[in-house]
Amino acid sequence: MRAAVIADGKLVVEEREDPVPGSHELLVRVRAAGINGADIHQLGGGYPAPPGWPQDIPGMELAGEVAALGPKAERFAEGDRVMAVVGGGAQAELAVLHEREAMPVPEGLDWPQAGGLPEVFFTAHDALFSQAQLRPGERLLVHGGAGGVGTAAIQLGRATGARVTATVRNEDLRPQVAKLGAEAIDPDGFEEHGPFDVVLEVVGAPNMPGNLTALATRGRIAVIGVGAGFKGELNLLALMGKRARIHGSTMRARPLEEKAIASRLVEKEVLPLFEDGTLQVPVAETYPLEQVAAAYERFTAGGKLGKIVLLTS
Amino acid sequence: MRAAVIADGKLVVEEREDPVPGSHELLVRVRAAGINGADIHQLGGGYPAPPGWPQDIPGMELAGEVAALGPKAERFAEGDRVMAVVGGGAQAELAVLHEREAMPVPEGLDWPQAGGLPEVFFTAHDALFSQAQLRPGERLLVHGGAGGVGTAAIQLGRATGARVTATVRNEDLRPQVAKLGAEAIDPDGFEEHGPFDVVLEVVGAPNMPGNLTALATRGRIAVIGVGAGFKGELNLLALMGKRARIHGSTMRARPLEEKAIASRLVEKEVLPLFEDGTLQVPVAETYPLEQVAAAYERFTAGGKLGKIVLLTS
Repeated sequence: MRAAVIADGKLVVEEREDPVPGSHELLVRVRAAGINGADIHQLGGGYPAPPGWPQDIPGMELAGEVAALGPKAERFAEGDRVMAVVGGGAQAELAVLHEREAMPVPEGLDWPQAGGLPEVFFTAHDALFSQAQLRPGERLLVHGGAGGVGTAAIQLGRATGARVTATVRNEDLRPQVAKLGAEAIDPDGFEEHGPFDVVLEVVGAPNMPGNLTALATRGRIAVIGVGAGFKGELNLLALMGKRARIHGSTMRARPLEEKAIASRLVEKEVLPLFEDGTLQVPVAETYPLEQVAAAYERFTAGGKLGKIVLLTS
Repeated sequence: MRAAVIADGKLVVEEREDPVPGSHELLVRVRAAGINGADIHQLGGGYPAPPGWPQDIPGMELAGEVAALGPKAERFAEGDRVMAVVGGGAQAELAVLHEREAMPVPEGLDWPQAGGLPEVFFTAHDALFSQAQLRPGERLLVHGGAGGVGTAAIQLGRATGARVTATVRNEDLRPQVAKLGAEAIDPDGFEEHGPFDVVLEVVGAPNMPGNLTALATRGRIAVIGVGAGFKGELNLLALMGKRARIHGSTMRARPLEEKAIASRLVEKEVLPLFEDGTLQVPVAETYPLEQVAAAYERFTAGGKLGKIVLLTS
């Protein structure tokens, strides 16, 4: 198979041996695989794939057809359209994953959307509901509203009856973010728009004092990204006074059982909303696998709304 | 009635008008009222009573007999032994509270124990179970293990099947803390004793980096006191990597409905363990109301295990 490979901090496309599915595993012919911030970190050497996953083939999400079943695999049949969050190796023509990590692709969802769905919707759903326990009618602040996780979180918040505000640095993108259902605001001075019951933090430490200021009593901050810095001051007295909590999480390091639970939750609580058109995966651009380096450059350049997705086969 | 009163930052005992119970309220002849760290803060001017409570009569917990019922009060009868966390005003001969904030005093519990029970057991139970969701078999670290909340938390942790470690600065008190069911350790270098699933933090910001180091994957830190400082650095990347969370809380500011819910939980989950002897309230010393100033001094001096309790009538 052809695969994107990280070699000396650069991306190339190489021929690799086809992977073989083991017990309860699926071999998937990958049709589409989204690019995520974590891929950029991995390319920079800072975010290795967990053990048991391809170490030099990047890619944490994929969509494709089941090409072969490993022994005892029974959840899907050959030819079924599946998608998943994986620990690595998605940006290749073929990938292997456990059947309990896979989800069916909702009817009507095309390959680019399906390949760009898992990571951001898993992450947003987990942060908002499994961690922060967002409830109908609550006020949600989504930082980085034009980003992948941001657009997913805005839509999930709206679909649940929350009132959503999103920070968007690029003024030109604010109207598109507003169309997703959020009040789109300038990140500067965001703390004056509170109080918020839940804050989804992707920017990092510089936002934390403002988040705490803008938090409602019994509010929750879910930290899932720290692009702008990870060390900051925490005022414990303010945290106590608001009876608030701060969650930190990542998806990648989770063991099979936790990823499988997250998959079942997304299947049940999120995928039906794609079938009825409530949710969508904004896709900014697609690139063929052979242009993976250009695709990463486009991702890093920013200024887009929606996912950059590799069409891998 | 006689009441402890804060006047110009000092404690005196004065004659005050008897309070009158309103709808669904109880007039309680206070027999015992524990002293807590928050009282010291209030004496220093920093922690006012919430609206609707006596502003200058301190005391956040009490035990006594129902002396009179307000209109529509029906949960208790005159003469019943009750105890409660209140917003203020406990350190007096009489106090008024809503009947849904009151709990029956367990059979066999004497007045000093009953008067020193509510605040620390409410706080510890809320932090460990309602917030940090401590589970059987988990490892719990209790900071300030010789303090009021510490001794309550150690016992609750043990009674739930958790394995408990407690930091105790005063070496002489460690054997007594060990008897409560904890491994009692020196606070210096506590982070080498992890990983802990739950950390109960009463010391404050200086402990937070060590808490995060000593935390297990998916661990929880419950911050309920910041005596040694409230501003500290938080490493968000470490928080994310451990998929951990930090809770902050206080009991005093909570509205009636939240205090009532906490009372029902303690009634159901904690009080039966006093009746069967699993739990106890260590009482270090008692003072008559007239010696309230000396009692506060004793509390502040430290070096004790267990509560300082005023015997108010």
